[in-house]
Amino acid sequence: MDILNFIEKKKNGQELTKEEIHYLISEYTNGIIPDYQMAAFLMAVYFQSMSAKEIFYLTEAMVNSGETYDLSQIPGFKVDKHSSGGVGDKVSLIYGPLVASFGLKVAKISGRGFGHTGGTIDKLESFPGFKTNFTFDEFVKIIEKTNMSIISQSQEIVPADKKIYQLRDVTGTSDSLPLIASSVMCKKIATGSDGIVLDVKSGSGALLKSNSEARELAQIMIELGLDFNKKVAVIITNMSQPLGHAIGNLIEIFEVLEVLQGRGPQDLIYISCKVAALSLCQGGIFDNLDEAFAACEARLKTPEPLNYFKAFIKEQGGDLAIIENLTTIENLLKVTNRIEIKAKQDGYLEIFNTSELGFLASRLGAGRSEMTDEIDHKAGIYLNKKHGDVVKKDEVIMTLYTNRYPTQAIYEWPDKIYRVVEKAPKEQELIYDIIQ
Amino acid sequence: MDILNFIEKKKNGQELTKEEIHYLISEYTNGIIPDYQMAAFLMAVYFQSMSAKEIFYLTEAMVNSGETYDLSQIPGFKVDKHSSGGVGDKVSLIYGPLVASFGLKVAKISGRGFGHTGGTIDKLESFPGFKTNFTFDEFVKIIEKTNMSIISQSQEIVPADKKIYQLRDVTGTSDSLPLIASSVMCKKIATGSDGIVLDVKSGSGALLKSNSEARELAQIMIELGLDFNKKVAVIITNMSQPLGHAIGNLIEIFEVLEVLQGRGPQDLIYISCKVAALSLCQGGIFDNLDEAFAACEARLKTPEPLNYFKAFIKEQGGDLAIIENLTTIENLLKVTNRIEIKAKQDGYLEIFNTSELGFLASRLGAGRSEMTDEIDHKAGIYLNKKHGDVVKKDEVIMTLYTNRYPTQAIYEWPDKIYRVVEKAPKEQELIYDIIQ
Repeated sequence: MDILNFIEKKKNGQELTKEEIHYLISEYTNGIIPDYQMAAFLMAVYFQSMSAKEIFYLTEAMVNSGETYDLSQIPGFKVDKHSSGGVGDKVSLIYGPLVASFGLKVAKISGRGFGHTGGTIDKLESFPGFKTNFTFDEFVKIIEKTNMSIISQSQEIVPADKKIYQLRDVTGTSDSLPLIASSVMCKKIATGSDGIVLDVKSGSGALLKSNSEARELAQIMIELGLDFNKKVAVIITNMSQPLGHAIGNLIEIFEVLEVLQGRGPQDLIYISCKVAALSLCQGGIFDNLDEAFAACEARLKTPEPLNYFKAFIKEQGGDLAIIENLTTIENLLKVTNRIEIKAKQDGYLEIFNTSELGFLASRLGAGRSEMTDEIDHKAGIYLNKKHGDVVKKDEVIMTLYTNRYPTQAIYEWPDKIYRVVEKAPKEQELIYDIIQ
Repeated sequence: MDILNFIEKKKNGQELTKEEIHYLISEYTNGIIPDYQMAAFLMAVYFQSMSAKEIFYLTEAMVNSGETYDLSQIPGFKVDKHSSGGVGDKVSLIYGPLVASFGLKVAKISGRGFGHTGGTIDKLESFPGFKTNFTFDEFVKIIEKTNMSIISQSQEIVPADKKIYQLRDVTGTSDSLPLIASSVMCKKIATGSDGIVLDVKSGSGALLKSNSEARELAQIMIELGLDFNKKVAVIITNMSQPLGHAIGNLIEIFEVLEVLQGRGPQDLIYISCKVAALSLCQGGIFDNLDEAFAACEARLKTPEPLNYFKAFIKEQGGDLAIIENLTTIENLLKVTNRIEIKAKQDGYLEIFNTSELGFLASRLGAGRSEMTDEIDHKAGIYLNKKHGDVVKKDEVIMTLYTNRYPTQAIYEWPDKIYRVVEKAPKEQELIYDIIQ
């Protein structure tokens, strides 16, 4: 078998066989096929796409490239949830304790932040001492004890995906739907959950800017779920706007705790409860989504979810002191520079570029532009106003928290993110579609 | 400037600027941009093509990547000729002495054979002692003395092209028209000829299998010629069939000498004279193509072209003994194995896969499958019959000459090349188009 032949086939829109795709992935993972040939292949996939069969074989080959988790020893229904990444997206941290409080087992592997999007692991590491590098046996024990665990991706799970993901990142092939679908799904398949909810973000703050692409991706992943005998539900949500008011790490934990104590922003509660409701229906806790959703909203008014969250954090080594001492953001985020961005005129707030909001948070220290960058957990942004809010001249629109020197670029950044307009911008839906 | 941004632009069908293309080529040549990013970019070019402007900037950037030759010190009109490569294509070796005999100056840089196509340099090295690695000053001196010189590509001329060409070869991006056009033309521009004739091959023995692609390539190269102020003519020729009867190295020299002595196959004479006539018109020796063509045919009946050929071979160190002792192919090609392939039935010969003929010659020792392979100058194929000829059962169709052990695969190879059919196959045109 010859990689050059695979490239030619894909270039000419022909379908690759199971054997060819498995060979390609294993030879690439083993370093036999060089990056430049894989890069050419991936770009051909971007243009010619892949058939449902090819996507299945690709996902299968990536699953087979490393270890797989068998969670059957944990009694009950195991769930996982994935978001395609957005700005201010702290849904996992609300979803987890919420569904755990209903008795589902959350077995979640999460990633770190990169570019304009944050990562669940980074946010959790705002708790001093919080650990994420557990062995499989430890992972199982934590889930058995607290109904949930979130660990970081190990080197042994889907190594092929890791290698291909990095190559896609530097070759302009990140936004190929078959490649996104197989990359998301191989991790979920390998880590052995029974039910998977996928939150596909669409809009200016997401990787997929259009709704039709998000729907197509959803369809591919639903089919992959069927192929692998997993319950998969997809929720397509609006990422033209950040979720909630907080963007960063510790500042997002603050907002999560607000929600877990029955307060917090409506958009975040709404999405979190919808995603949780989908898992609860998959797990047979409820029969229909509306009922499950109402139960989730009600549950957030009780101390249960916060108790599950605390138990989980403690079990993974996190120091809960920040929760106990929590009063205001100002007390929590003691940084050298606190910058208030104020409205220059009266009107309505229009946030038109949410990616740039993410990039600004990253620049303040909350994220990474290189995978090796260190994160400042106290850096971040608080949106004093949200899209569509009435603002008065000199009112604070957002507050920036950073320990870095505030350059001119940082002061000018908000101009790439929002403007104050005369007419109220059109209201946006939070959820575009739910596919079960 | 960021290569990732260039990849995205090309992927999305946007036009790159002059600065971007120059940056891309110089950074790649200098090893700053890695192969995998260039591979992704080239595949995006395959799918999105390039505008005339982009092709010009690309060609210009490749010319600027290394040394350029200024041939203005040589009096007279300097010509060069390029073939996109075929099987049995020894036209350059007839064209050269033919136009030299009319006073044009042939300043030609040639390549070596690879895959199913032979290379002019390899064929010339059939003359013991023949050298091709001359300095620029030596190159000029040879041209001044004999009206022609053919040297091999130096490391200093268009290094960017060399690096990109190798990458295209292993990433399935060889057949992208903008990449072919810029690769061909940058070499011709860099080596400073006044007039360039491009022989674009189309058909089963060529890289471009379709006529419309050949025409499109021709048009791109004509436009590039105008951009660089060069006289460019394109002849689109049929490479569904090999040229002449001889395929190999020394065996092709034998056929060249036949033509230079007023004998030899009609198809080869016809194409050689047409190509030569185009250069003679560019150089102002004749006003119209028909007149120039007739003069070329007539000139081949005189000793002049052979004299120019001998002077050129001698000047570049070649031992002319093989010409002096030339009687028959059998005397010339003393090999360990001479295999006659015979017709199994009466009928007409149909050669339906000329690439395979080239690959067979290569397997016999006449070519390379890796660039580092050694060539056996005595290996090759003689076509006792040509496409469309009447054949009788047990008549010899082709004779194979090799010093290698004749495996079963070699005996079976001809089945991939020809069949004997009941009806005479349709006659094929030799020249599809001439664009000046």
